[in-house]
Amino acid sequence: MSGLNSRERWEVRASHIAKLTHNPIRSIVENIVVEPNPNKRMIALSIGDPTTFGNLKPAKEVIEAVQESIASQMYNGYAPSTGYEKAREAVAEYGSSDFVKVEAKDVILCSGCSCALDLCITALARDGQNILIPRPGFSIYRTLAEGLGIAVKTYNLCPERSWEIDLDDLETKIDESTAAIVINNPSNPCGSVFSRNHILDILNIAARYYVPIIADEIYEHMVFPGRTFHSLASLSSEVPILLCSGLGKRFLVPGWRMGWIIIHDKQNVLEGEIRKGLQCLSQRIIGSNTLIQGALPAILRNTPEKFYDDVMRTLHTHSKLCYNCIAKIPGLKPIMPDGAMYMMVSIDLASFPEFNSDLEFVQRLLMEESVFCLPGQCFDYPSYMRLVITIPQDMLEEACQRIQEFCYRHHCKTAEIHRKNHLIENLSETFLLTNGTSENREDL
Amino acid sequence: MSGLNSRERWEVRASHIAKLTHNPIRSIVENIVVEPNPNKRMIALSIGDPTTFGNLKPAKEVIEAVQESIASQMYNGYAPSTGYEKAREAVAEYGSSDFVKVEAKDVILCSGCSCALDLCITALARDGQNILIPRPGFSIYRTLAEGLGIAVKTYNLCPERSWEIDLDDLETKIDESTAAIVINNPSNPCGSVFSRNHILDILNIAARYYVPIIADEIYEHMVFPGRTFHSLASLSSEVPILLCSGLGKRFLVPGWRMGWIIIHDKQNVLEGEIRKGLQCLSQRIIGSNTLIQGALPAILRNTPEKFYDDVMRTLHTHSKLCYNCIAKIPGLKPIMPDGAMYMMVSIDLASFPEFNSDLEFVQRLLMEESVFCLPGQCFDYPSYMRLVITIPQDMLEEACQRIQEFCYRHHCKTAEIHRKNHLIENLSETFLLTNGTSENREDL
Repeated sequence: MSGLNSRERWEVRASHIAKLTHNPIRSIVENIVVEPNPNKRMIALSIGDPTTFGNLKPAKEVIEAVQESIASQMYNGYAPSTGYEKAREAVAEYGSSDFVKVEAKDVILCSGCSCALDLCITALARDGQNILIPRPGFSIYRTLAEGLGIAVKTYNLCPERSWEIDLDDLETKIDESTAAIVINNPSNPCGSVFSRNHILDILNIAARYYVPIIADEIYEHMVFPGRTFHSLASLSSEVPILLCSGLGKRFLVPGWRMGWIIIHDKQNVLEGEIRKGLQCLSQRIIGSNTLIQGALPAILRNTPEKFYDDVMRTLHTHSKLCYNCIAKIPGLKPIMPDGAMYMMVSIDLASFPEFNSDLEFVQRLLMEESVFCLPGQCFDYPSYMRLVITIPQDMLEEACQRIQEFCYRHHCKTAEIHRKNHLIENLSETFLLTNGTSENREDL
Repeated sequence: MSGLNSRERWEVRASHIAKLTHNPIRSIVENIVVEPNPNKRMIALSIGDPTTFGNLKPAKEVIEAVQESIASQMYNGYAPSTGYEKAREAVAEYGSSDFVKVEAKDVILCSGCSCALDLCITALARDGQNILIPRPGFSIYRTLAEGLGIAVKTYNLCPERSWEIDLDDLETKIDESTAAIVINNPSNPCGSVFSRNHILDILNIAARYYVPIIADEIYEHMVFPGRTFHSLASLSSEVPILLCSGLGKRFLVPGWRMGWIIIHDKQNVLEGEIRKGLQCLSQRIIGSNTLIQGALPAILRNTPEKFYDDVMRTLHTHSKLCYNCIAKIPGLKPIMPDGAMYMMVSIDLASFPEFNSDLEFVQRLLMEESVFCLPGQCFDYPSYMRLVITIPQDMLEEACQRIQEFCYRHHCKTAEIHRKNHLIENLSETFLLTNGTSENREDL
C-alpha cells in the first residue's frame, strides 16, 4: 500500500484560485447595509444591464432568429469548442471592414464577453506576470487576473480630457513582466470613446515595448450621433490584438452569454503559441449556447441600422438630460460621455462634510432618496459615482431631481438655506393642518 | 520612469495554463490521417452526442418551454452569476428525493456540465495537489486538472465486474495531497451503473480518509429498464459531495450548455471555504444562458416520464442488439452496459496480428469499413474501443455487420478461411460474368 493520508477530520480548504477570485463590486455592494427610503420608489442607477426596466428591447429580427433556431431543431447538439463554422463566419464578416479582413478561423465563440476576456488573460499571462488595466475601470479584469496570480497594474484615465489614457503613465507602468495591456473602448464606467489619434498613440506605445493588447470592445459601435468608433484592430498594422466583444450590450441581450474573441495578428506574432493556447482553453467549457450560435448569422446580418441608431439616440438624449441636470447641482460635476451607457460624476467631498467617502455619499443617497448609484470605489476611483443611463427617461429625470434635492440638503453652502426653507414649509404645513383642511388629509 | 522593458522584438508566449490544457481525445483523433472507404457511407460510432443523427429528439415540452422563455422577453438580461433563484429552485426540487433535500442556495448553474466540473475541480484542488479519476474515464477531468497544475491519479475500474471500482486500488491511490475523488456514475465510456452497496463502499473509503467527492452524474437516471440509479448524495451521511449534472444528456440538448453543481454537505464541511469559493469562481463567467434558465422550471417539471422511458428503452434495445452481434465476433468482447449511451468492447490484439494497438485497429476499421469508433487510448484504456449506441438502429446494425466483416477478415483464425471464401466468391463472380449475365451487370 502506498501513500494514503493521515487526516483525522474533515478539513476541506479552497484552492488559491478560488480564494483569490474576488469581485470588488460585489464586496462593496454587499457591505451596504442601509435600506432605501420606504416612502420613495427605488430607482437603481447601478445596474449595467440595459434590459432591467424593459424600455430597451432587442430587435424583433434578433428574437425571430432565435425562435427559428429553436424550431429548426438543428442546434441542440454539441458545437466545436470554438463554435460552429457558420456562426464564426458571421462574426468574421461582422468584424471585417475596409481596413481589416477577419476569417472564421480567427474567431472563437465564448460564453459571454467575460469568458472571452477570461480566455485572453489566461492565455497571455501567467502567475507572476502582470497586465495593465485602466483606472477607473471595470472590475472584471482584476477578478479574472488576480484569481490566477496575475498582478494588475493600473494606468490612469484623465477625466479632464474625456477620459483619454494618460499615455506617460501607461508607458511608465510597462515592465519586463507586462504580458498585455487591456484597453476598454468605449468604456465602462466612463462612456468615453477614443479618437483615431489617441488610438494611434496607444498602439505606438504597445509597439515600442512589444506588448500585445486585449481590446475589450463590448461597447463597439455604441457611440452617440456624430461620434465615430474606431476599433483598435482597424488602426493596428503591427500590434497583435485580441478583440473581445459579443451580443450583450449592443444587441441588448447580456443574459444570452454570447461573446467572442477575434484574433488580429497581421505580423503572425500569435501564431506560435497563443492561437493554439486559446483553442485549448476553449475546451475547458466547450463553447457557448448552440441555439444562439445557430441564430448568430441572422442576428448579425438582419438587425437593421435603425435599431442601433434608435438605441444610441435614446442613450444620447438620456445623457444630455442627466448631464444638464447634474451639472447644475452644487458639489457634483458630471463628465459627459460619448458612448456606451454610463456617466461618471465627480463628488466634491469637501462640500459634503457629512460624508467621508463616495461610499458614504451613495449610501445616504439610497437611504434618503431611494436612488442607488455605484460608488467610484467599485471602479478603483474614489470621489466619483457611476450612473447608468439606460433607465426610462421619466425615472432618470426623477432620479436627477432627487439627487439634486439630496445635494441641496447636504452641501455645506446650501444646507443652511435648505434647512430654513424646510422649516418654513413645516410651519405652513402646521398652519394648514390647524386651519380646517384635516378632512382632505384623510384621503392621502 | 520605472521599469519599462527591454524587449527587442515580438515574442508572445502562452501561459502555463494554456500550454498544459490539453484534450487527449482531440490529440488522438486529430492524428488519425486515414480516410474512410469512399464506397461505404460513413457511420460514426465515436460521437458522444445523442442528437447527431436526429433519431433522438428532445421532448416537445422542452422546446415549448424555451419558446415561451424567448417570447416572454423576460430573460434577456443578466442573471446572478449562480443563476436565477427560480431556476435554482427548480434544480433543487429536481435533485431532491425522500433521502436528500436540496435548497436553491445549494445550486450553482453553469455553462454546461463541463463548466460545473471545472468549477468544482478548481475550487477543491490547487497546484501540487491531486485528484483521483477513473480509468477508463472521460478525458475532461484530466484536461481541467492538468491545465491548473493539479495532478491526476487514476484508479481502476474492473471490466469483469461490470466496471465496478477496484476499491483496493482506489484506497491505495489516496495520499496526503488528494483533494478530491471524481466518481462518474453512470459512466462514460463504460455505461456502468453502480449498485447501492458499491456506492456505500466508495463512500466508506472517502469518509475514512476525509476526501470529498466530485460526483459526475451527468448521466443520472439514464439506466436501462429494471436497473436502479442511486446518486452518491442520496447514500452519503458524512462525505461532502459536489454533484455535477445538467440537461445535456438526459434531455438530449448538450449544445445548450445548461449544467449545474449541487452542494451536498450534511456535516457542513464545505461551509467554511468551498461554498464561497464556488460562488466566487462562478463570477469569472457570469452564469449560463438566461433563456434556458428561464425555461428550466418548465423543462424539469413538465418533461413526461414517458419521454425518459422511451429514450432508455431505445438505448437498451440498441445495446442488446449491439452486444449480441459483437459477442459473436471472433477477437472482440463487448461489456454489456447498464445505462448511459456507450459500450466498451475489448479487442484481443493477439488475435489481430496486423494491428499493434487499438488505435491501429480503429484506423483500419475506418479505412476499410467507414465505421469509426474511439480507441480505448482516448479513455486511458488501451486494447478497447468505445461504441456510442445512440445512432439509429439500422445504422447500428450495419455498423455491427461491417465490424464483423472486418474482424473475420483480419482475425488470425478466420482470416485464412475468409480469404478462401472471398476467393470462391470472386471465382463465382468471374464465372457469372463470363456466362451471359453481363447485360444485367450494366444496370448496376
